[in-house]
Amino acid sequence: MAKPTSDGEFCIIERYFAPLARNTAGAFNLKDDAGLISPPDGHEAVLTTDMIVGGVHYLEGAAPRDIGYKALAVNISDLCAKGAKPSVYLLSVALPEKLDPAWLEGLSEGLSEAQSDFGCTLLGGDTVRTPGPAALSITAIGFVPAGRMVHRSGARPGDRVYVTGTIGDAALGLALLRDPKSASSGHLSPDHKEHLLNRHRRPRPPVTAIEVVRNHANAAMDISDGLAGDFAKLCAASNVGGRLDSTAVPLSDAARQWLGAEPARLADIITGGDDYELLATVPQNAQENFEGECCCSAIPLKAIGEIIDPGGGFSVLGEDGKALELELLSYAHF
Amino acid sequence: MAKPTSDGEFCIIERYFAPLARNTAGAFNLKDDAGLISPPDGHEAVLTTDMIVGGVHYLEGAAPRDIGYKALAVNISDLCAKGAKPSVYLLSVALPEKLDPAWLEGLSEGLSEAQSDFGCTLLGGDTVRTPGPAALSITAIGFVPAGRMVHRSGARPGDRVYVTGTIGDAALGLALLRDPKSASSGHLSPDHKEHLLNRHRRPRPPVTAIEVVRNHANAAMDISDGLAGDFAKLCAASNVGGRLDSTAVPLSDAARQWLGAEPARLADIITGGDDYELLATVPQNAQENFEGECCCSAIPLKAIGEIIDPGGGFSVLGEDGKALELELLSYAHF
Repeated sequence: MAKPTSDGEFCIIERYFAPLARNTAGAFNLKDDAGLISPPDGHEAVLTTDMIVGGVHYLEGAAPRDIGYKALAVNISDLCAKGAKPSVYLLSVALPEKLDPAWLEGLSEGLSEAQSDFGCTLLGGDTVRTPGPAALSITAIGFVPAGRMVHRSGARPGDRVYVTGTIGDAALGLALLRDPKSASSGHLSPDHKEHLLNRHRRPRPPVTAIEVVRNHANAAMDISDGLAGDFAKLCAASNVGGRLDSTAVPLSDAARQWLGAEPARLADIITGGDDYELLATVPQNAQENFEGECCCSAIPLKAIGEIIDPGGGFSVLGEDGKALELELLSYAHF
Repeated sequence: MAKPTSDGEFCIIERYFAPLARNTAGAFNLKDDAGLISPPDGHEAVLTTDMIVGGVHYLEGAAPRDIGYKALAVNISDLCAKGAKPSVYLLSVALPEKLDPAWLEGLSEGLSEAQSDFGCTLLGGDTVRTPGPAALSITAIGFVPAGRMVHRSGARPGDRVYVTGTIGDAALGLALLRDPKSASSGHLSPDHKEHLLNRHRRPRPPVTAIEVVRNHANAAMDISDGLAGDFAKLCAASNVGGRLDSTAVPLSDAARQWLGAEPARLADIITGGDDYELLATVPQNAQENFEGECCCSAIPLKAIGEIIDPGGGFSVLGEDGKALELELLSYAHF
C-alpha cells in the first residue's frame, strides 16, 4: 500500500479555509476542483477581482487579521458600487516558504469577520508557495436584478455627485504609519490617531448603500485610488466633464484637525486613496429620493460636485472656486 | 484644470488586456469596476481559480507566451473535469517594478492563443505591482446544465478509471529543463526532447471531452499534481478504494523511450504532475458509450484502474501485480 501524500496544502485548506466555506452551498467543503453558483431567478452575477501584495498594499508587519479583512473588503467595495449584493468569493493565496501558523490563523479570522460584516462566504480557492512576499487574490461575486448593474459610464451632465462616509482617513492613516512623528505636526489626539489608523487597516465599504445606489444612481464606482482621480476616471468613462468641490469633501474630525494644522494635507486626502467609499452620480429627478433613502438607512452622504458637458473638462475647485493644481489625481501603481 | 493622472496601469490594461476582452459582452472593454455574467437558461456557473508564480510554476526565463498560455490552461483543465463549458475568465497580474513591454506583449499573445484553443474570453482583472516575482491569478468560469456538474466525490466501487492523453510528459519535460544532460541517459531523440518540453510548456486540457465526461462519468478531476496522488485524492473524496495499474498508464513515444532506458523514471511519470489530462471514473453500464463517444471525438483514452470498496485502500500496482512503494504520490507545495 502506497504511503499517503505529504500534503501540507490539504492541511492548510482544511484548517484555515474550509471553515470559511462551511455555509456555502456550492463550495462542497473545498473538496472539489471548482465551486458552483446559480444566480437567483431574474438576476445576473457581477464579478470583480483585486489582488493585494505584501509591501505594496499593506506594510510588512501588518496584522494578518487586518490583511484578511482588507483583502475581502476591497473586493466587496466594487460590488457595492455596481449595486450588486455580495454572495461568495474565491481566494488564491501565495504563501512564503516559511509558514507561520499564527499568521494563517489571523488571516482566516480577518476573512471570517469580513464575511460576517459583508454577508458573503468562501466558494473556493488555491494555495501556492511564493519566493516573494505573501499575496492574496480574491474574486468576489454578487448578484443584481438582470440589466440593473450600475456602470461607471452612465453619468450625464446635470447629475449631482455624491460620496458616502468620510474621505482621506485611510491615506492619512498610512502617512501616520510611515511617519509616526507626523501626528504631532497635525496636533492629533490619541483618538484621532486611532481613527485614522483603523480606517487604513479596516476599510468598510457601505453594503447598506447597495440598493439605494442601484435604484437611483446613473453611475457609480468605488473610491480606491483617490477621490480626484477616480472622479476623473468616471467622467472619462462616461464621456462627460466634472467639477469636484474640494471644500465640500466630507472629513472626519481627525482629518479636519490635521488639515487645519497642515493645509497641504489636502492632496493626501483627495488623491491618496484606499477610502473604499462610494462615488455616485444621481440625476436631478432622483436626488430627493436618493438623499432621503440614504438618510433613512443611516448612510452618511455628501454632495461634492457635479457632472457637466464634456467640453468643460475635469477640475478640482479650491476655497475660492478656482481650480487647484494637483501633482497627481490618484495613486498609480506604475 | 488638473493634470491627468500618470496612470500606467490604465495604459497596460488598454494595450495588453483590453484586446482579450473585445468579444466579451459583460466585460465593458475593461472600463468598469466589474464584469457581468448570466448563465444560459437552465445552467449554473462553475468557478475555479489557480495562481501561478514565477520560480515556482514556471522557471525564470520561461517564454511569456508560454506562461500566459499555461496560466489559462491550468484553469480550463478544472472546468473540463467538472463537465463545464469554458466561457470567461478574470485575470489578476502582479508585475515586478521594472516592466518589460516585450514580456507583457508575449503574455498577452499566449493568453490570446489559449482563448482561441479553449473557447473563452477575458471578463475583467486587476494589475498590481510586486517586489517579488511575477504572479498570475486566474478565475475561470464555465457553464453546466443545472445539477450536472461532475464531482470528485461521485466514484463508486466497480467504476472503471480512465485517463485522457498521455501521462508524465510534462514532468519529464521539466526534468529535462532542470538537467539538460539527462536527455542522453534517456537516449532521447531531438523530437522526443521537443515533445516533452512542449508538453511542459503548453498543457492542452481536453476541451473536446467535456460533454462526454459530463454524460457518463460518476466522478472526475484533472491531473495536476500527479496521477497517483490525484487518483488517491479522488478516492478519498468519494470514500472508496482504488487500484492504479502503473503498467497501463498511457505513455508517449518519448516517455516510453526514457522509461525503457531508466525504469526509475516511473516515479516522475506517475507522481510528477502538470499533465492537465482528465481522470474519470465510469460505471459499468456507461463504459461502452463512454469509450465509443471518446473514440468518435478522437479523444485518446485509456483504462488504468478501478474503484474498489473503501476497505481495499488505495494502491499502485507494478509489473508483477504487486503494490509499488512510492516516496510521494504527488507534487506538494508545502
